[in-house]
Amino acid sequence: MLAVHLESGVVSLRQTPVPRRPQGYALLRMLVAGICNTDLELQRGYYGFAGTPGHEFVAEVVEADTAALVGRRVVGEINLGCANCAWCRQGWGRHCPSRRVLGIVNQPGAFQEFFVLPERNLHVLPGDLPDEWAVFAEPLAAACEILDQVEIPRHEPIAVLGDGKLGLLISMLLAAHGYPVRQFGRHEEKLRIAEREGVAVELASGPLPMAAYRWVVDATGSAEGLASAISMVRPRGTVILKSTVHGAVAVDTAPAIVQEITLVGSRCGRMEAALPLLEHGIIPVESLIAARYRLDQAPEAFAHAARRGTMKVLLATKP
Amino acid sequence: MLAVHLESGVVSLRQTPVPRRPQGYALLRMLVAGICNTDLELQRGYYGFAGTPGHEFVAEVVEADTAALVGRRVVGEINLGCANCAWCRQGWGRHCPSRRVLGIVNQPGAFQEFFVLPERNLHVLPGDLPDEWAVFAEPLAAACEILDQVEIPRHEPIAVLGDGKLGLLISMLLAAHGYPVRQFGRHEEKLRIAEREGVAVELASGPLPMAAYRWVVDATGSAEGLASAISMVRPRGTVILKSTVHGAVAVDTAPAIVQEITLVGSRCGRMEAALPLLEHGIIPVESLIAARYRLDQAPEAFAHAARRGTMKVLLATKP
Repeated sequence: MLAVHLESGVVSLRQTPVPRRPQGYALLRMLVAGICNTDLELQRGYYGFAGTPGHEFVAEVVEADTAALVGRRVVGEINLGCANCAWCRQGWGRHCPSRRVLGIVNQPGAFQEFFVLPERNLHVLPGDLPDEWAVFAEPLAAACEILDQVEIPRHEPIAVLGDGKLGLLISMLLAAHGYPVRQFGRHEEKLRIAEREGVAVELASGPLPMAAYRWVVDATGSAEGLASAISMVRPRGTVILKSTVHGAVAVDTAPAIVQEITLVGSRCGRMEAALPLLEHGIIPVESLIAARYRLDQAPEAFAHAARRGTMKVLLATKP
Repeated sequence: MLAVHLESGVVSLRQTPVPRRPQGYALLRMLVAGICNTDLELQRGYYGFAGTPGHEFVAEVVEADTAALVGRRVVGEINLGCANCAWCRQGWGRHCPSRRVLGIVNQPGAFQEFFVLPERNLHVLPGDLPDEWAVFAEPLAAACEILDQVEIPRHEPIAVLGDGKLGLLISMLLAAHGYPVRQFGRHEEKLRIAEREGVAVELASGPLPMAAYRWVVDATGSAEGLASAISMVRPRGTVILKSTVHGAVAVDTAPAIVQEITLVGSRCGRMEAALPLLEHGIIPVESLIAARYRLDQAPEAFAHAARRGTMKVLLATKP
């Protein structure tokens, strides 16, 4: 079968055997997969990754212990907990200290024709949810995680910094929940996407408003984003950190302490929260798709995704 | 009258006129004052400070609009809000954007024979609370602020990093509230002080426990403290930032995001919370006093306080 291989920054294609399905796992045939910023970070050397990346996917179950799963379309939770530790037993496998992570840590990813994932990680898709919408379940779940972590009172204005894919999903999600959202970004055409969904948008060309919001989400993906977010939040306010910038960031912690700001790190979320929003078109993701490639075009797809400002690039096993 | 003057790193003594008392203010005669790390930071050039420092004090009211105050011993809230903005009107003068701060920002401090402070900032002391205990009201209020900001479930173990004055007040306070506290520090004799109050202590000579606590307080006062605290906290746990380290600190935010850690900046607190703890000897502060100096010995007192590992150095107008 065809598999994408990423090593030392190079994306290549390989012919490999179809993986063996361990007990409790499903063998999955990839239908559509999305290239995420994390995949591009892996390419840049983060985690010293070598192998098959890919963690945003829609797949068809080919084989499984549970007969009812076979033939169903699924998405999947990307963290593979040990199922035995205190975290896993509390349903927090996402934080299992010995977890593997699909396409990121010790678990071959979805950018190949077939791959495996524990059955307990799978979420069966409703029949009428298009593959190309469902593939956003993972990043939309990451956006939903914010509201699982912090309780933001109704009608509280929220500022979202950054107009990348995740920033747009976050602003549209928060607007759908009825919050007055103002999104600050650098790309007029991207901000338009959020604006159509009721988000107030502002081209961040000049100085940002200081100490203006009780709630600020940093989804810039940049090292400067955190400092901007801290300057925009009011004393005793909360900044939600959605930018995984790797390596040390120079942060002046004094303002955060003097203003008694709370910083909340936020990562993956529950797909259960994301799927209904996609199914009912509450978060329209069609406009976030920049391009579609076949799996055998993965090197070109990665190059496209890496271009500054590119929205979601999809890989598909069928044209 | 005698006043301490701090400018360009030099502590000197000056003869100055007794300050004029504006309406709504009390004229205060300093009895005892404490040298805080912030005063030493002012000496090192933080805020480009020039003037009379001092914000930890016990004083006697000499003149006031409110006759009942005259002759009373008081401590005082150090933030002088404008009293008109939205923050002040909500009782949050500590975060007033145009606030002055006693002995720190645009308001001459307590290291002089007489100084002024708004009457609304004053807290009258009970008759049997010794001056040398009451002078800890300000730093103990800063410790109390933690429990005003975050709700820590009963019986949750808490790690406190740092065994300086604030670290000890924090660990003793949390232990007094019934929490199992473990304090990590580098000075055996200081840790003993907390140990006598029911704090489990650990000389931090080797590696610190990783991902071991749901609640960690960083009171190290050092740039490395935050990184240590982040490594010690469990996924989804909370780090309370009590170290005002000035200037940019290189922080690797990725672990905080991946582990979904919450960082809470924490500064000054309510003296109402601190005073009863001092009055009833619940937090014994006697053992935190390193030395007593007369006001006219302020240069020597500052030099003493600046020696690494020195506990609280007090200044008094009477010997």
